[in-house]
Amino acid sequence: MNRPVVLISLESPHSFWQLSAEHERVLSTAFPGVEFRTAAEEAVPNQLAQAHVYFGWRFEPSWLFGAPRLRWIASPAAGTDHLPVAEARSAGVALTRSYGFHGRPMAEHAMGMVLGFSRGLFVSQLAQRSRTWWKDDLAEEFFDLAGATMTIVGCGSIGEHLARAARSFGMDVIGVRRRPPVTAGGTIRWMHTSAVHQAVAVADVVVDLLPATRATDRFFDHGLFTAFKPKSVFVNLGRAATVDQTALLAALDAGRLRGAALDVFDPKPLPARHPLRLHPRVVLTPKSSTLSRTYMDEAVAFFADNLRRYLTDQQLNGVAEAPAVRSPSAGR
Amino acid sequence: MNRPVVLISLESPHSFWQLSAEHERVLSTAFPGVEFRTAAEEAVPNQLAQAHVYFGWRFEPSWLFGAPRLRWIASPAAGTDHLPVAEARSAGVALTRSYGFHGRPMAEHAMGMVLGFSRGLFVSQLAQRSRTWWKDDLAEEFFDLAGATMTIVGCGSIGEHLARAARSFGMDVIGVRRRPPVTAGGTIRWMHTSAVHQAVAVADVVVDLLPATRATDRFFDHGLFTAFKPKSVFVNLGRAATVDQTALLAALDAGRLRGAALDVFDPKPLPARHPLRLHPRVVLTPKSSTLSRTYMDEAVAFFADNLRRYLTDQQLNGVAEAPAVRSPSAGR
Repeated sequence: MNRPVVLISLESPHSFWQLSAEHERVLSTAFPGVEFRTAAEEAVPNQLAQAHVYFGWRFEPSWLFGAPRLRWIASPAAGTDHLPVAEARSAGVALTRSYGFHGRPMAEHAMGMVLGFSRGLFVSQLAQRSRTWWKDDLAEEFFDLAGATMTIVGCGSIGEHLARAARSFGMDVIGVRRRPPVTAGGTIRWMHTSAVHQAVAVADVVVDLLPATRATDRFFDHGLFTAFKPKSVFVNLGRAATVDQTALLAALDAGRLRGAALDVFDPKPLPARHPLRLHPRVVLTPKSSTLSRTYMDEAVAFFADNLRRYLTDQQLNGVAEAPAVRSPSAGR
Repeated sequence: MNRPVVLISLESPHSFWQLSAEHERVLSTAFPGVEFRTAAEEAVPNQLAQAHVYFGWRFEPSWLFGAPRLRWIASPAAGTDHLPVAEARSAGVALTRSYGFHGRPMAEHAMGMVLGFSRGLFVSQLAQRSRTWWKDDLAEEFFDLAGATMTIVGCGSIGEHLARAARSFGMDVIGVRRRPPVTAGGTIRWMHTSAVHQAVAVADVVVDLLPATRATDRFFDHGLFTAFKPKSVFVNLGRAATVDQTALLAALDAGRLRGAALDVFDPKPLPARHPLRLHPRVVLTPKSSTLSRTYMDEAVAFFADNLRRYLTDQQLNGVAEAPAVRSPSAGR
């Protein structure tokens, strides 16, 4: 057997999404029998001719044609809906996502969004430029996190991390899942997806962490938003395709929602005059919930663990299972 | 001895700052030997003639003249700088503040302010209306709370509550105090006030919880802001008088501070064109950090405990110790 070749293409304008010299050193030291090559994205198609393993942010379906030795595409991202999952499977190439380390920054992001509404900080940021004094408005509007309920829809490992953060503020947490949870999940109250209407009806905060699949397409539709508790907060850190944005805007305008914080939306970016951009009770972030200065440290560690499995013919972690619904707003 | 008369004046447009019928029932049941009277604020001066104890938000110095039997003024507020501490002392009347229950809402408020900056949520709220896509800006700007340092200046019981919230996000916490801490404070690293320049120099977030006293007047001055770590966040949930606002603005404009979140400022309200209102890196809240739906439940419980002490000649909790510096921006 030839020496395995791993091609790495991890370019980014931001250092925490790049492969550092230290990461290269760690990998080379840990795997002396592997040849690591790095390539700029435009050089990837050519370099793939010799590669057995590819580790990178992007992978074009056409690249599979010039990669006869390729056995495994490893992505440092959590989602796979921007990757050619079906095409890779047809070509007999494994495709893996990364997980286990997005929960911490996403929990920070989600709690910031929730507290921004619960403490009236978003209202205050606009009011400070236009209003004399707005304490009475906030006194009507704020809510205590202690004793409030957060329902997490699509509650996997990221959701369990968020649940711990919410619990530390004294919130009750309901986790909604399609499959029974693998872990006990601490003090999460588990409910099946079929009971999601009951789960949102008692929630002060609903967090959408659903992946984009056929089953979750526009999962949050008019009927589900109508079941929300009045004056609740909706947070989407999952995928834009899981939300009917027209129904969301209607729920906001009807006053059913206190506000919505969206890290994902469709299209990306939204047109300048899109109602979600201008709505006074909507806060948008530019798919930034996973931003972390330690991102690549963790992604390289995850990849190294998987490379060890690959080299010893063990099952890879994070294999993309089902062809995902392509969403124009997905991606890292 | 006559039956003790307790006069209560707890008016507010907001239910959670009012005395409820349930609170009255609880007090009457717990203290059958006490006569409780409630009064609207304009009736207080007359009603004080018979009262031994007063429990209310406000107390005018002049009211002391018509209160010959008054022995104790109890405030449900945490601060006493809006109350006639020196005048009450001269008249031989005890004056108490309330404490032990402000920490929870203030910790929520402070963490919301910190996460609003660390996750770029305040930047996003403005950018979503004016920018096409701002992920690269956030990627430069965000910081992870995990592993970051929070320095709490004036770290008493409220600070210890905030410290627990910060610790739950993996932050390191430095508590700055004038006196040695009463409790161990868990994993807080304690430093004396004289070392505050070192304490802020290593902090990603500095939270001001100082009371308003002569010693803390403009404590955060040009020299102290100059010692801050570059790109740190300043949060003031204490008293406006503890900050030199001109020096704060200079630190913001010099780029030393990433941002400032202020629940207190001077004057209150700020004029419409005040630079703190218009600064893109300043977020103001209208002295709303203690907003809590359970506020009066807790304040009545604190008062009931103190009333038991009063009736059995024990030392009252929360006696205002030193004449406070009057600040126009202080108060509840």
